[in-house]
Amino acid sequence: MRNIVLKIMYDGTEYSGWQTQPNALTIQEVIEKGAKIIVRHDIELNASGRTDAGVHAIGQVANFKTDSQLGLPRLQNAINSQIPKNIRIIDIAEVDEEFHSRFSAIGKTYIYRIENADVASPFEINRSNFVRRPLNFEKMQQESKKIIGTHDFTSFKSQGSNITDCIRRIDNLTLKKENNIITMEISGNGFLYNMVRIIAGTLIEIGLGRDFDFEKIIKAKDRQAAGPTAAAHGLFLKEVKYPIDIWSKDGYNI
Amino acid sequence: MRNIVLKIMYDGTEYSGWQTQPNALTIQEVIEKGAKIIVRHDIELNASGRTDAGVHAIGQVANFKTDSQLGLPRLQNAINSQIPKNIRIIDIAEVDEEFHSRFSAIGKTYIYRIENADVASPFEINRSNFVRRPLNFEKMQQESKKIIGTHDFTSFKSQGSNITDCIRRIDNLTLKKENNIITMEISGNGFLYNMVRIIAGTLIEIGLGRDFDFEKIIKAKDRQAAGPTAAAHGLFLKEVKYPIDIWSKDGYNI
Repeated sequence: MRNIVLKIMYDGTEYSGWQTQPNALTIQEVIEKGAKIIVRHDIELNASGRTDAGVHAIGQVANFKTDSQLGLPRLQNAINSQIPKNIRIIDIAEVDEEFHSRFSAIGKTYIYRIENADVASPFEINRSNFVRRPLNFEKMQQESKKIIGTHDFTSFKSQGSNITDCIRRIDNLTLKKENNIITMEISGNGFLYNMVRIIAGTLIEIGLGRDFDFEKIIKAKDRQAAGPTAAAHGLFLKEVKYPIDIWSKDGYNI
Repeated sequence: MRNIVLKIMYDGTEYSGWQTQPNALTIQEVIEKGAKIIVRHDIELNASGRTDAGVHAIGQVANFKTDSQLGLPRLQNAINSQIPKNIRIIDIAEVDEEFHSRFSAIGKTYIYRIENADVASPFEINRSNFVRRPLNFEKMQQESKKIIGTHDFTSFKSQGSNITDCIRRIDNLTLKKENNIITMEISGNGFLYNMVRIIAGTLIEIGLGRDFDFEKIIKAKDRQAAGPTAAAHGLFLKEVKYPIDIWSKDGYNI
């Protein structure tokens, strides 16, 4: 069996997230159904992780096994022809049998976009979190540095999650501001459920003047110590890292 | 009567252009109906010019007369509350009685966006013209300089238009490339119907290797001499210039 891996970009607005579920349209289901028409058998897509309803991806990764002998560019184009334009396979590769999009991953990068303006741009609908009150960008930037490093992120874990090992390593967190858009980019070896959105939500509160201290929040090991979970539609899964070079093309930007 | 001028941003995708017409949803009609609820009388919006179906605006300008005594920020917020989020009043001012968005204008800036990539980004749907075959950006840039200056642009006028004075002054034309997006920005004292889209369509053909020469096209004074009219959804009305400073805020970007 060939092990085919896809790099996938999607606008998550119209979907109930990545993972197949009854009575809801999901990205996984749409791609599996499209690919089935091409490879002529049921496939099971293993993604690097789920994304929630409304969350977007620039570089989600998912793999599947097939006996189809179609060439890679042909397979990519054929699957794209069977799925809506708000989901695109932007790269494709063949990998070892052992490769698994989730278990082989060694890191991920997310971006979180905030629009800070008097009036929300029509071109930012569902693509950034609109904040009308002025944000203190310098203060957000200063405070955000404290997240970098290996910490117990229990305070940044959704209360619904029952994962117990909450130690994660954040390799990088940058904030940049271009016109009205603030973009947080965060890379790490793994993220707890809602962790990026809780970090973003806390940073927004800091920007609004609330007296949050990331060191104290981390020490508290209590979800109540952090700020609110920021809206899903500001979040983009940008990249998944593997120990091997998989892709032939440069990534996309947003 | 007060003369109120609005700066308007819109995603034109769902509209049949700016100008009110029977049996079609237009941007003018939507704003006039929204504003009527607020000022409690019929209003007539005079825009700097029409935009076609699918064309967007970052800084369309339109004015109307009213006896309403509402303060400007209040008026702006109230109108925004009555119209869909894909149309936003991003600035507002009160001007002399003689000011007319169209007749007082001394220049306009448009941008035209092209996505040049193997696969079309989900986030560029209806916001740029997708071209799959590689474009020679340097050649486009070189050739585009010849458009700058005062010329008879008969060759760049839609055949449906019966305007006879086709002399216009192009003050600036720049092309920039960021990742997969090529942005043409063009400023001038006025534009013929479809002129920007025909210039963009010709530049795309040049990028694809076709042997077009802008000097020859201009000399021909014949629409057949130029390239095709590029798709409406790549076009954005960026700015309208007036002899006076009207606005209090910085503009938006796309």
